[in-house]
Amino acid sequence: MVLENIKKANDIKDIPPSQYDDLAREIREFLINKISVTGGHLGSNLGAVELTMALHLVADLPKDKIIWDVGHQSYTHKLLTGRQEGFETLRKYGGMSGFPKRKESRCDAFDTGHSSTSVSAGLGLVKARDLKGGDHAVYAVIGDGALTGGMAYEALNNAARLDTNYVIILNDNNMSIAENVGGVSKYLRKIRTADAYKDFKIGLENTLNKFPRGPQLVDTLKRYKSGVKQLVVPGMFFEDMGITYLGPVDGHDVSAMVKMLKEARKLPKCVLVHVITKKGKGYMPAERHPARFHGAEPFDIRTGLPIKKRKPAYTDIFSTVMTKLGARNDQVVAITAAMPDGTGLKRFSNMYPDRFFDVGIAEEHAVTFAAGLAAGGLKPIVAVYSSFLQRAYDQILHDVCIQNLPVIFAIDRAGLVGADGETHQGIFDISYLSSIPNMTVMAPKNKWELSDMIKFAVALESPVAVRYPRGEAYDGLEEFRMPVEYGRSEVIYEENDIALFALGSMVETAAEVRLDLKERGYPCSLVNARFAKPVDTAVIDDLSRTHSLIVTLEEGVKDGGMGEKIMEYVFENKLDTDVLVIALPDDYIEHGNVELLKKEVCIDRESIVKRIISSYISWGNKHRRDSGTVFDGKQD
Amino acid sequence: MVLENIKKANDIKDIPPSQYDDLAREIREFLINKISVTGGHLGSNLGAVELTMALHLVADLPKDKIIWDVGHQSYTHKLLTGRQEGFETLRKYGGMSGFPKRKESRCDAFDTGHSSTSVSAGLGLVKARDLKGGDHAVYAVIGDGALTGGMAYEALNNAARLDTNYVIILNDNNMSIAENVGGVSKYLRKIRTADAYKDFKIGLENTLNKFPRGPQLVDTLKRYKSGVKQLVVPGMFFEDMGITYLGPVDGHDVSAMVKMLKEARKLPKCVLVHVITKKGKGYMPAERHPARFHGAEPFDIRTGLPIKKRKPAYTDIFSTVMTKLGARNDQVVAITAAMPDGTGLKRFSNMYPDRFFDVGIAEEHAVTFAAGLAAGGLKPIVAVYSSFLQRAYDQILHDVCIQNLPVIFAIDRAGLVGADGETHQGIFDISYLSSIPNMTVMAPKNKWELSDMIKFAVALESPVAVRYPRGEAYDGLEEFRMPVEYGRSEVIYEENDIALFALGSMVETAAEVRLDLKERGYPCSLVNARFAKPVDTAVIDDLSRTHSLIVTLEEGVKDGGMGEKIMEYVFENKLDTDVLVIALPDDYIEHGNVELLKKEVCIDRESIVKRIISSYISWGNKHRRDSGTVFDGKQD
Repeated sequence: MVLENIKKANDIKDIPPSQYDDLAREIREFLINKISVTGGHLGSNLGAVELTMALHLVADLPKDKIIWDVGHQSYTHKLLTGRQEGFETLRKYGGMSGFPKRKESRCDAFDTGHSSTSVSAGLGLVKARDLKGGDHAVYAVIGDGALTGGMAYEALNNAARLDTNYVIILNDNNMSIAENVGGVSKYLRKIRTADAYKDFKIGLENTLNKFPRGPQLVDTLKRYKSGVKQLVVPGMFFEDMGITYLGPVDGHDVSAMVKMLKEARKLPKCVLVHVITKKGKGYMPAERHPARFHGAEPFDIRTGLPIKKRKPAYTDIFSTVMTKLGARNDQVVAITAAMPDGTGLKRFSNMYPDRFFDVGIAEEHAVTFAAGLAAGGLKPIVAVYSSFLQRAYDQILHDVCIQNLPVIFAIDRAGLVGADGETHQGIFDISYLSSIPNMTVMAPKNKWELSDMIKFAVALESPVAVRYPRGEAYDGLEEFRMPVEYGRSEVIYEENDIALFALGSMVETAAEVRLDLKERGYPCSLVNARFAKPVDTAVIDDLSRTHSLIVTLEEGVKDGGMGEKIMEYVFENKLDTDVLVIALPDDYIEHGNVELLKKEVCIDRESIVKRIISSYISWGNKHRRDSGTVFDGKQD
Repeated sequence: MVLENIKKANDIKDIPPSQYDDLAREIREFLINKISVTGGHLGSNLGAVELTMALHLVADLPKDKIIWDVGHQSYTHKLLTGRQEGFETLRKYGGMSGFPKRKESRCDAFDTGHSSTSVSAGLGLVKARDLKGGDHAVYAVIGDGALTGGMAYEALNNAARLDTNYVIILNDNNMSIAENVGGVSKYLRKIRTADAYKDFKIGLENTLNKFPRGPQLVDTLKRYKSGVKQLVVPGMFFEDMGITYLGPVDGHDVSAMVKMLKEARKLPKCVLVHVITKKGKGYMPAERHPARFHGAEPFDIRTGLPIKKRKPAYTDIFSTVMTKLGARNDQVVAITAAMPDGTGLKRFSNMYPDRFFDVGIAEEHAVTFAAGLAAGGLKPIVAVYSSFLQRAYDQILHDVCIQNLPVIFAIDRAGLVGADGETHQGIFDISYLSSIPNMTVMAPKNKWELSDMIKFAVALESPVAVRYPRGEAYDGLEEFRMPVEYGRSEVIYEENDIALFALGSMVETAAEVRLDLKERGYPCSLVNARFAKPVDTAVIDDLSRTHSLIVTLEEGVKDGGMGEKIMEYVFENKLDTDVLVIALPDDYIEHGNVELLKKEVCIDRESIVKRIISSYISWGNKHRRDSGTVFDGKQD
């Protein structure tokens, strides 16, 4: 075993080149074995094994800095920097992150998670190095998918001005999470099959040299430098910006990459090294089904199939609704930012290809493009993960909501997402959407309500977001299916003194909490909030008359969330009831099993029950005492 | 007068070509005359006169759609669509907007304000047209400055795939608000001085044709289509993406542009027409000082100098602090997104060019680049307008705050900005920043405190935002200058029963309100909040003991703002005081004089006084009655 000899950063440098192939094979076996058990990002990691080896052979870690765009391809990097044991606990609570983390290792130069940030962050590290008089290398590794994100281009546009070394490695596998899209992708494909260029170059030179004054002409051509470059260099797109282009180079040939990276490191400017890799390389199921193995659940290594058969997820429900809506209403169009599978739009795209748009990893464009579609009279549905929609905050506020355009946001992975951790938790959307004028924010309690809400949203003539969590769709409370009405909540159980006012995923939890409380002698009403914005204040009025405590529950941060709005309403209107807000703390939440995380942040059934009873008892007393104090005070 | 004959859209088509020059001249005179009185965007409009004329000659409005990127260059468009009289009230309250507005005219196809949105919105209109079976034209007009914004590139990447007509007009004046920056800008400059290319093309063909088998060779070359294109077409950057490039064409030659636009309209794909214009064209002071005339105050036409001499603005104070900090601390670096003048960083950039970075109109990159600088050990200060920072919400949350990196945000134009209206009001930052973990949000009461806060922020080892308004810096309350301490407010006047807890710009207003209230017999305490996050709860505890009403005041939307946090704190802790939140409504606020706008949304001195007295009286009574009710109720 070659891999055994690698205990820490830079150990790879002692491995003889003759063993590189063995090492690559062992790393792949290791990753497949581990990820088949824990789940994780497989395809991107298998594709980047040799690239990472080459980088570690060239770089001196932790002095040199490597920034991994998105970061899900950093497993080999973790392995080569002494984190082999971490893979036992990969993406588990308290265990190793699936992304680079500065707090995990000094070899992780910058935390990533969202796409297209590496070139910007790396440029910052380059400028800091130069100003502080350092001489270390900075490498940004960015995929061709991430290159569809606009901020990568903003960064390239700036990096082009450098007169000092900065190496950007374009890890080009012709894939985002799904197949890559757009003009630049097409362009890269053209370079990849670079024979045309080579043939042309050779062909032209041969042809010219056959002419009587041919060699002279070749000379003449070479004097028109930019013209000739365009003839013979494939990377003119980058060269035009002022970035030196090297490549393409085979991303599974360690020695070739080492040679090119060393060359790149020597130039006193920004250099882009174009590396061609294959996503899923070395594991047939992953090569064949790259989207499925992008982020994999635990799977059977032999067949590549997931081990656990799961119940339908909210994504599946959304998928079905969309196909139905597509048939019923030809104004309905759907947009995804590189996630046709993850968002469940794949089926819609197959059935209505003309009305489906995969814009690449480009949430900003996705939203303003949707605004344009809506201004043109269509009903665009933007399906996107909660944490990625953060990218388009300004576009929602500025392009959709000012004009009050009927764009529908289907926000998947809203709430705690688990294994992906801090960067992917969908816990801010209620807050950042609720402070935007003209926006409506909804969340369904179960799978039927998701369907009802999407239909309701399509009928609405203003911007609206429907948020729903990752994973299995709740199929309880089927009997409660009051038609969705604007701004109205749904009263599920009416009892007294404690009222649970729960949003979306928390209705299921609240139903359990209610049973617990009942058993302990506390009768509870349960209301399904449905709308985080606008809050159903009429029901709050009603509840306040018959309940001494209203408990709001939501899977999002407390600051700017639904609970605050309700508390404010109660306070401003001097309603005679207490409010307990159950929401997430003002903090980032790490990776781990969602159930564990919920316990950690006290929004699991048991913690909630305790918090309610404690508040109910102490506030009940406090309330009485305070009232007394105030009363006496005013009388004095 | 030719202009007199234009009363509505399409009237320009009846003007004979021989009068185009006269018309252009008259339009320029009109614009200079009007804007010298009202103020407004001058340079960009003077540069786009002929371009707009050409577009209106080619387009059939309102059937065809024109999207103006940013939109501040749309004055000629407004003039040619029958809004001549609107210029009397340009950017005034209730008057004509300085930006395209769908509610203002059917000839305005899409509202703009922020940069780089036009290509996305236009692509949406194109797709909507095609799906609905329309045949109208869609034109997006984007400047070379806006092309430094990443979302424009995301959109181009998608537009490249079109197999239907879409005309993008690149209005290239080699300027953002200030001089344009970056690789693409350099590239465009290369094309602009296109003689090299033309010479090369002609030279090559001539050379080849001189050879015995020359014509054959030219044929051979033409078969290698992409190669030949690279030889003879200047716009390969766009062609590489799959966008047809036409140009460059003189942007002050109406007939040439009309011809090229007609040609562009015929192609069944995305076409980019490269138009070369001069910002400020036809008015010497604006040609010479493009940054000053980007957004101009009323000025003397003869000299080009502003009519009103103004007191130092917060921007000026910030400018001075930065030069001092630059001298004192060589870790301090400054970043602007294309606004060295607007943000006041110009002086810093002159003194410390190595530590100053103008990244172009690229707020996303700016923030993650700053995160990289901070990770590299520097102290980056990102100076940006409040409404533009919305673009970087995800980068603040994901790249700066998860890693708790010490990036300082100097947020100018926070609060109501006036004449630019809805798209530019800086009223959301308190909300969207406060819900981000690890973030600190501050606002100074006067000019000295801005200076103190920036210094405090630089010493802090975590992300921090200092927000301050547009316009003159408040120079009152000089005698109150308690050192800035983390999370601590500053008690200014201590009296009793009513406490004003005001943030930033609202301290000045609160001081006036306090005098008014005093006169009317209501003694008031006044506290300068300083921190919107974290709120100084210790002072709230104190105030609640001695005041029956705490009034919070902030120039930002109420939802997710500081007032809500305080109300929540008081309610959750059952403090014995009422809270009145004075903040902005959940709505967009139009353009107009800031003082008028403040009246409109009831945050002016008079309205506030009324609201406080009314609350104090009714709640005072209500409070007593409620307490009684509760007390009795609980006793029953």
